[in-house]
Amino acid sequence: MSCVASSEQAHAEGAPRVIVAGATGFAGALAAHLLWRHPDFELVAVTGRSEQGRRLDDLYPRYRVGLAIEQLEPERLEAIDAAIVAYPHAAAAPTVAALCEHGARVVDLSADFRLRSQATYEQWYGEHPRPELLEQAVYGLTELHRAQIAGARIVANPGCYPTASLLGLAPLARAGLIADVVIDAKQGISGAGRAFDESTHLSMAGENILPYKVAAHRHTPEIEEQLAALDTVLPVQFQAHLVPLDQGEMASCYVTPTRTISKAELQELFIDAYAHEPFVEVVQAPPGVREVRETNFCRIFAAADGHTGKVLVFSAIDNLWKGTSSQALQNLNVMFGLPETAGLA
Amino acid sequence: MSCVASSEQAHAEGAPRVIVAGATGFAGALAAHLLWRHPDFELVAVTGRSEQGRRLDDLYPRYRVGLAIEQLEPERLEAIDAAIVAYPHAAAAPTVAALCEHGARVVDLSADFRLRSQATYEQWYGEHPRPELLEQAVYGLTELHRAQIAGARIVANPGCYPTASLLGLAPLARAGLIADVVIDAKQGISGAGRAFDESTHLSMAGENILPYKVAAHRHTPEIEEQLAALDTVLPVQFQAHLVPLDQGEMASCYVTPTRTISKAELQELFIDAYAHEPFVEVVQAPPGVREVRETNFCRIFAAADGHTGKVLVFSAIDNLWKGTSSQALQNLNVMFGLPETAGLA
Amino acid sequence: MSCVASSEQAHAEGAPRVIVAGATGFAGALAAHLLWRHPDFELVAVTGRSEQGRRLDDLYPRYRVGLAIEQLEPERLEAIDAAIVAYPHAAAAPTVAALCEHGARVVDLSADFRLRSQATYEQWYGEHPRPELLEQAVYGLTELHRAQIAGARIVANPGCYPTASLLGLAPLARAGLIADVVIDAKQGISGAGRAFDESTHLSMAGENILPYKVAAHRHTPEIEEQLAALDTVLPVQFQAHLVPLDQGEMASCYVTPTRTISKAELQELFIDAYAHEPFVEVVQAPPGVREVRETNFCRIFAAADGHTGKVLVFSAIDNLWKGTSSQALQNLNVMFGLPETAGLA
Amino acid sequence: MSCVASSEQAHAEGAPRVIVAGATGFAGALAAHLLWRHPDFELVAVTGRSEQGRRLDDLYPRYRVGLAIEQLEPERLEAIDAAIVAYPHAAAAPTVAALCEHGARVVDLSADFRLRSQATYEQWYGEHPRPELLEQAVYGLTELHRAQIAGARIVANPGCYPTASLLGLAPLARAGLIADVVIDAKQGISGAGRAFDESTHLSMAGENILPYKVAAHRHTPEIEEQLAALDTVLPVQFQAHLVPLDQGEMASCYVTPTRTISKAELQELFIDAYAHEPFVEVVQAPPGVREVRETNFCRIFAAADGHTGKVLVFSAIDNLWKGTSSQALQNLNVMFGLPETAGLA
Repeated sequence: MSCVASSEQAHAEGAPRVIVAGATGFAGALAAHLLWRHPDFELVAVTGRSEQGRRLDDLYPRYRVGLAIEQLEPERLEAIDAAIVAYPHAAAAPTVAALCEHGARVVDLSADFRLRSQATYEQWYGEHPRPELLEQAVYGLTELHRAQIAGARIVANPGCYPTASLLGLAPLARAGLIADVVIDAKQGISGAGRAFDESTHLSMAGENILPYKVAAHRHTPEIEEQLAALDTVLPVQFQAHLVPLDQGEMASCYVTPTRTISKAELQELFIDAYAHEPFVEVVQAPPGVREVRETNFCRIFAAADGHTGKVLVFSAIDNLWKGTSSQALQNLNVMFGLPETAGLA
Repeated sequence: MSCVASSEQAHAEGAPRVIVAGATGFAGALAAHLLWRHPDFELVAVTGRSEQGRRLDDLYPRYRVGLAIEQLEPERLEAIDAAIVAYPHAAAAPTVAALCEHGARVVDLSADFRLRSQATYEQWYGEHPRPELLEQAVYGLTELHRAQIAGARIVANPGCYPTASLLGLAPLARAGLIADVVIDAKQGISGAGRAFDESTHLSMAGENILPYKVAAHRHTPEIEEQLAALDTVLPVQFQAHLVPLDQGEMASCYVTPTRTISKAELQELFIDAYAHEPFVEVVQAPPGVREVRETNFCRIFAAADGHTGKVLVFSAIDNLWKGTSSQALQNLNVMFGLPETAGLA
Repeated sequence: MSCVASSEQAHAEGAPRVIVAGATGFAGALAAHLLWRHPDFELVAVTGRSEQGRRLDDLYPRYRVGLAIEQLEPERLEAIDAAIVAYPHAAAAPTVAALCEHGARVVDLSADFRLRSQATYEQWYGEHPRPELLEQAVYGLTELHRAQIAGARIVANPGCYPTASLLGLAPLARAGLIADVVIDAKQGISGAGRAFDESTHLSMAGENILPYKVAAHRHTPEIEEQLAALDTVLPVQFQAHLVPLDQGEMASCYVTPTRTISKAELQELFIDAYAHEPFVEVVQAPPGVREVRETNFCRIFAAADGHTGKVLVFSAIDNLWKGTSSQALQNLNVMFGLPETAGLA
Repeated sequence: MSCVASSEQAHAEGAPRVIVAGATGFAGALAAHLLWRHPDFELVAVTGRSEQGRRLDDLYPRYRVGLAIEQLEPERLEAIDAAIVAYPHAAAAPTVAALCEHGARVVDLSADFRLRSQATYEQWYGEHPRPELLEQAVYGLTELHRAQIAGARIVANPGCYPTASLLGLAPLARAGLIADVVIDAKQGISGAGRAFDESTHLSMAGENILPYKVAAHRHTPEIEEQLAALDTVLPVQFQAHLVPLDQGEMASCYVTPTRTISKAELQELFIDAYAHEPFVEVVQAPPGVREVRETNFCRIFAAADGHTGKVLVFSAIDNLWKGTSSQALQNLNVMFGLPETAGLA
């Protein structure tokens, strides 16, 4: 018997009904939390392939979501308007397809629908389970594809590294200013998810800095494809590192520009690019990831290095929030015509 | 009254007599610890500009150095053979000079004698207090300047970032393979020293990743000057970040090579370069800084990225050990004809 | 120039106008944040004795409070309805007095009005600056003194340790069940506040567990006085420890009961005590402080140890939230007739 | 191919030959490291039930032990003089028995031979696999049983909590001063060992303080049995907590004394008790566990609380060192007639 009084959902009458499929992992659980406290959505179910019957607020007490984890059952799908799917890649696509067929609009947190090119997908992830749906999917970096997201049936939520990297590089890419780029990214241990192994044990991950997937990270083609969509076609040097914090991610971008760019021009470029964005902040000093912890904000600092001629961009997000679950909510807000900041500010 | 039984020094009869000037900071205290437990040196005094009279094993209990902190007194200098000076830049040079004049050989942990060019020094640090001594000083990256260090009166111990960066880049530089380089470095909070401010407070530095001194780090000219000594003259993009651990430093180096280099050639280059080095290890997987914590080792992993054509080098050290104080001991070993690994393995 | 769009305050028309005096420290800044996002209060000013003119969202970016820090000026006090004072003890009392005289109702975060006995105060803190106000002040542990708080002009917000300890012990104290008690408390580094010294430096506070103020913590008389108000008069063994996290506090209470108490009776006692409390949760397994991080909740687990006959109570809070600033908001809600959970759930 | 030059063992000719059985866990790996660098023992093999064939310096790079993990083979046992067994309880006893039968002297890190009473063992751990050996085993808290350890064939290395607790309480117990005692212990995450689960994941164990095994820790009977051997027979209230560091353990002991004891008498009692102990330090201020990290030292601070009449004792160790593996070496030193500090100071 538990005496814990779950917080109540307080959503508007007739609010869209949403489920989270795969709510036992870090991303799905946070998505459920954000929906639970959202004024304009109703979280009607959380499902999981394990832990069925256990309450989500037992598994993640801080999130205070008063629902038990269920098996995903097709017969109840009619009644829902949308779903956030937080499955591993390859497992996600069939679920996304089933949900779509029953009329739900889906934000998929996996990699299954992020890449436009099936060939690229299969080079990095293996055979695609539902390639016929690739065309319908919209890449869900809200700031880049807002209009398409509004009408999409399937939104492929970006990877956390592409989110930080692309927000940092998009103004330069659009202006045709990137001749070459190195992205050195650092991320907290929550980026490894609810995995129990040497990469997450506090006595191994603590007091450590660890480069991983050297010259082989699956987020590389995702960044390249999106830069190409901004007419910047080039191979990207992307490198990830694990550092000993929980939530937070920094993409340090070193750009060799196509021409000399002054400090003033650089500032104007970034400020203009994001002047009307509610969740991107161009700042005048290097941001720490702590500044954006547990928010949907991305903080960007750009600098021109007169010594080397390079342009440096530092882009800070919370990998679990803007990098994953709160961006999923931002996309849902757009998809359902709500204020983009609803439930997130 | 304290009941703490300090560990005993157990050095050989007639061992060289050494002092540490500036033993209250992190670097000086660790140097004192390493000398205290060294079989072939006698630590005869620890001095400080503050905390005089307090025992060093009270200030740094783990280090167990059973000496009280004294004022640095010239009249006792005759009796010593060597000194490690751990003062801030500009304050160090006059002390180094005074110690030299009294016949001591000095390893200086400050920046005062690291740069060969007085003009470069003064551009970054202000007026040089004792420029006439610059010629006598040898840059103390043991692996690069061993022979000169053996005979030097003043050894300028390298900065921690140059140590990791140069060990990672030297094989490529010597082979004329570096056309361009970005160094993205990450370091634990001990790198900020015994400074009490926002950069070190656990509730501010914890859960943070913070780029600092953007496009303006004083270690840049030090790296450039040493690469130039290997006939690689180019502006270096160096960027430092603070991450929430205590001791540990990773230099992630992204090299645009002057020509295509195969994986096999790259491996051979690094393995040959360090085959006889007792403290540099070329490894076959990305190292974590935890692997070298509290050791004088540097672990290096080099990879050729077939996709971008770049060469990646990851160089891991403990910033306080190989990056500072244990490298000072390694240099002292060389200066006094001892086995280079004495007291360090 | 900054491009950061501060979040907007969205309070009801005619909402009570509140200031935070002393908003530069951890407690005041969080109080300002909670007021800023509160639907039913208007935060009209933040003041500080330092950092005047600097924006609070520059000093604490995550809190996103779009006000500049001002000097506390008496002449503007007429226009405000309430104040939260976050000054050190002894400095707080005169400010509280001045604010009261101008008609504001005050929640004081300092120790100045926590003790009913002037003699006890002066034994621990020195001369009391405004003893004549002691009678008016109500001890602000909401769950114990809700009715009095509703009508109070001065609410003395409890210390964080007394908050966790008293919520854990009150059901036993009221039932006359405590013959003797040991409270072993552990707290994160934020408990030391914005102090820059050896207790907060990550390279000193990290990897440490440190008992402090042995047999001499000022929260002891506060706990004893409140237990006495529940007719439990006894000397309390209270001991605090710093452990390396940011926010979180655990009070582990070891009670020698006045008579044997069964497990079932113990459960009933606690569940009944807190059945109607919105922010106290009686749980059936030992709570971790992580479960209540950044919430106003207190989680309590009580167990009867059949082997020793003792009763164990574990009480977990966030020291900065329920232990300080969110409890101040809970009290303000009560004082102004708002739902107790407004702005906090 | 690896270029890592393993450090060399440099032991005396004819040094006792030792193996570590179960070297893949934290305790066994550290024991292997300490033997590897020990001047007077030869580490001849490391065995494991998993990871066979993998080098130990690949699994634990910092420890630099240049041996591959083998299967434990009885036929090679003749050639060894001693073994450290680091198996889970119940699995350890048969291995200890087999090693003894082949003539090896054993330090067992498990719980299998710690309790003198078979009945107590079976109440807490289940059936004892080799109860006939219980009589031969000596409890390996070196400071309490040095003489017996010297001649023992089986030394049962104490649990980490009993080590800290008993060193803190022994002087009071011997003097008949303990009427009642509460031990509140806190430990870093390494205490959970190489377990991959919710208790060790950095994103779950970080920012947490977690009481565990409430009123049911297996170290309780071990402490009680040893106190009884000092003629202090009473039920002990022992409670463990996990806090977010790697290595370190604090036992905070709250003693109700049998009579009033003055501060001076208390100091004398502790100082006399440990005046000749090389690894126990009685200090005059509360110790932090950081002071003893990676050492075999135990630091103890005792205080008489005039307010409550209780005696407080704070005992700080490194749970993996003095709490486990370095104490095993201390015991081996005693068993083989070496200086007790050999290889440890």
